[in-house]
Amino acid sequence: MAPTKITGCSVRDIRFPTSLEKDGSDAMNLAPDYSCPYVVLKTDSALEGHGITFTVGKGNEIVCHAVTVLSKMVVGQSLDTIYGNFGMFWRSLTSEDQMRWLGPEKGVMHLAVAALTNALWDLWAKIEGKPLWKLLVDMEPEKLVSTIDFRYMMDALTPQEAIDMLKKARNGREKREKEMQENGFPCYTTSCGWLGYEDDKIKKLCKEALAEGITRFKAKVGADLADDKRRCRLLRDLIGPKNILLVDANQRWEVQESIDWMKELVDCNITWIEEPTSPDDILGHQEIAKALVPLGIGVATGEQCQNRIMFKQFIKAGAMQFCQIDACRLGGVSECVAVILMACKYGVPICPHGGGVGLCELIQHLSIFDYIAVSASLENRMTEYLDHLHQHFKNPCVMNRGNYVPPKAPGYSIDMKEESLAEYEWPKGKVWQKLIAQGAYTVE
Amino acid sequence: MAPTKITGCSVRDIRFPTSLEKDGSDAMNLAPDYSCPYVVLKTDSALEGHGITFTVGKGNEIVCHAVTVLSKMVVGQSLDTIYGNFGMFWRSLTSEDQMRWLGPEKGVMHLAVAALTNALWDLWAKIEGKPLWKLLVDMEPEKLVSTIDFRYMMDALTPQEAIDMLKKARNGREKREKEMQENGFPCYTTSCGWLGYEDDKIKKLCKEALAEGITRFKAKVGADLADDKRRCRLLRDLIGPKNILLVDANQRWEVQESIDWMKELVDCNITWIEEPTSPDDILGHQEIAKALVPLGIGVATGEQCQNRIMFKQFIKAGAMQFCQIDACRLGGVSECVAVILMACKYGVPICPHGGGVGLCELIQHLSIFDYIAVSASLENRMTEYLDHLHQHFKNPCVMNRGNYVPPKAPGYSIDMKEESLAEYEWPKGKVWQKLIAQGAYTVE
Repeated sequence: MAPTKITGCSVRDIRFPTSLEKDGSDAMNLAPDYSCPYVVLKTDSALEGHGITFTVGKGNEIVCHAVTVLSKMVVGQSLDTIYGNFGMFWRSLTSEDQMRWLGPEKGVMHLAVAALTNALWDLWAKIEGKPLWKLLVDMEPEKLVSTIDFRYMMDALTPQEAIDMLKKARNGREKREKEMQENGFPCYTTSCGWLGYEDDKIKKLCKEALAEGITRFKAKVGADLADDKRRCRLLRDLIGPKNILLVDANQRWEVQESIDWMKELVDCNITWIEEPTSPDDILGHQEIAKALVPLGIGVATGEQCQNRIMFKQFIKAGAMQFCQIDACRLGGVSECVAVILMACKYGVPICPHGGGVGLCELIQHLSIFDYIAVSASLENRMTEYLDHLHQHFKNPCVMNRGNYVPPKAPGYSIDMKEESLAEYEWPKGKVWQKLIAQGAYTVE
Repeated sequence: MAPTKITGCSVRDIRFPTSLEKDGSDAMNLAPDYSCPYVVLKTDSALEGHGITFTVGKGNEIVCHAVTVLSKMVVGQSLDTIYGNFGMFWRSLTSEDQMRWLGPEKGVMHLAVAALTNALWDLWAKIEGKPLWKLLVDMEPEKLVSTIDFRYMMDALTPQEAIDMLKKARNGREKREKEMQENGFPCYTTSCGWLGYEDDKIKKLCKEALAEGITRFKAKVGADLADDKRRCRLLRDLIGPKNILLVDANQRWEVQESIDWMKELVDCNITWIEEPTSPDDILGHQEIAKALVPLGIGVATGEQCQNRIMFKQFIKAGAMQFCQIDACRLGGVSECVAVILMACKYGVPICPHGGGVGLCELIQHLSIFDYIAVSASLENRMTEYLDHLHQHFKNPCVMNRGNYVPPKAPGYSIDMKEESLAEYEWPKGKVWQKLIAQGAYTVE
């Protein structure tokens, strides 16, 4: 029987003790424990929608709380109501009369919207029996555009323009889909360049990555200029002159400081500086881009860009040369599609944010959709890949010589293994109970 | 004995059933129930710090939860640590390694920071035995500036510039303080112009306000153009040609729509259009301002402007002609002071957001401080006043012919009456139990 309505919602607080390994250490995030509220939407059939948003540990329980509160607007709804006009349903979640004050469309509430709507899209793809990217690629342009809330976007993109873009991109679609199936979508790796890693570890990881066919590498910078110069030089020498080197400051700098610091690294031939300063500072990024683009360095940002309204401004202002959407920071798939369409219109390549837990599983769908059905270009496009925590997923992303292989299983690749969920549920899971008993963590 | 450390923190979920009266109804907020997490910081003396942030009902419990989580970073701290370098202490709350991901500095987490730091400032003023505005006015410029976190502000204002501005404004300070004591700070009223009110109610309220000496009036617009034209004409006729008329669209419009709509109201001689579109859309507001300022209409916004980084851009870009800081949306007093200083440097008048519950009690301190110790000007300055819910405060704001009379009691005027707290605590307070029993509200 096909499902007809949402009958229940469960939320679990899942955390991984990644800070013990210094995975993910950078100039701003000293010791993240990759975490997610894990949402399961039940239906009146056997099908379930699974969804997550991503956090780095503490406070994950606050987002779980917000999901629980918002889920009351989803449970009991018919799938006709939800999927019949998804854009309007999405707005009912983000713009609920009273709760809108808590954002609007940002922070904890928007992370919660992401978890819930990612689950709804996962369910949609499972109902259609397709991986999410294929659901998006096959959807009629009018239907896909109707999933988007265009509020506050109309000065950058209208629904009709979006439909026209999608129709135009139908040309050559089958060829590009075949190409994706054969070659996959290009990625870059951040696994080699964390701040906390010793040089020997960097060398070993780089060598392994090169052997796997990876040609794009990202390093964390921003804590110490002399150390950054040394490490960027080390990486450039390790990867050779032709491969791509990216750096990421994780919001460590002021505006002028960003410009001055990056000028010191210019001879390492760096393609982008990621998150030089506050994710809220559109005009600051614009100023940085004006100074650095003539030196061959673009500005990349987006993993903490709160919504389509901020992306609209970054894109229109020339404040980002690379658009790093985050599948869990934006309010789910349809807001990501909105940004993908705006970025395409203004000629800014989409390079999604990966890593954490589950982000790589999600973003591969978005990049593959972008290439096949929107931008039709791979120029300057690359999607982040990190080799962490994939073992916990039922259908982890698959790499082939540095490229994401298009997922085949129906859904959004979010489903985690039940044993992982049980072991890593904070604080009662077996892994956490052991760490708490050892005194490595405390429950406050 | 003077207090030496914070020994405990309690948070209560306080809500008022204002939606039953349609107070506060506008084009976006159809039926708000004015609410606040009410925070009490206990010390090792009899003194307590009281603080709130503001919400409009649902989700207030999520902010309470966030306050509880963040309070663990405050309880147990010595007052020397907190007040010795308040700017650094504030950053420790907003930039905690893992929780920063949930914002940064926006939404639920930042509202929680506001509640906690407002309580710390209330305590500080009580320790000094002064109303908050007087604490700020009397504080040495170097000390006051050290309470601010300048991260991401340095391209607009440096600590040294801030110190120099405060020192310069010492000239004439006593005279202005005396003037405030005699005349109070000018306000405008929104009480007459809610969307849900009948014409007869508007007429009656306007007449009463004029009789009280009020000369500045704000109306809500944005739901229906014909109705707006009729109501603005009614208000202009009621208040006469010389008084000030302001309108507020509460984010209802797109960018071009804002311009087109306001052109239709231009003959009502309107001083500002408030929140025409998304509070995140700096460049959209800039475009609206470019079109409307030549017609004599300025753009006002800020009540949902998330932090000093957004205000920095609005101010520098000419995207706001009136800067409406919110004492509960920004992260407490010191972030408000940061914005007051930036606005002064760039010549933008501060006109704080009032209303809700407790906002008027708080913002009067900020406006009075601004006049005496920063801007030294009343030109284009006016602070919002609404006549709602003041009866619940121990030291409610006092009006004198349309002006705020400087508060005298030590602290930040936040303390609510214990009986009000008991009656309006959600959902167990007597008022709520009665409404729930009547079926007017349900606990989910």
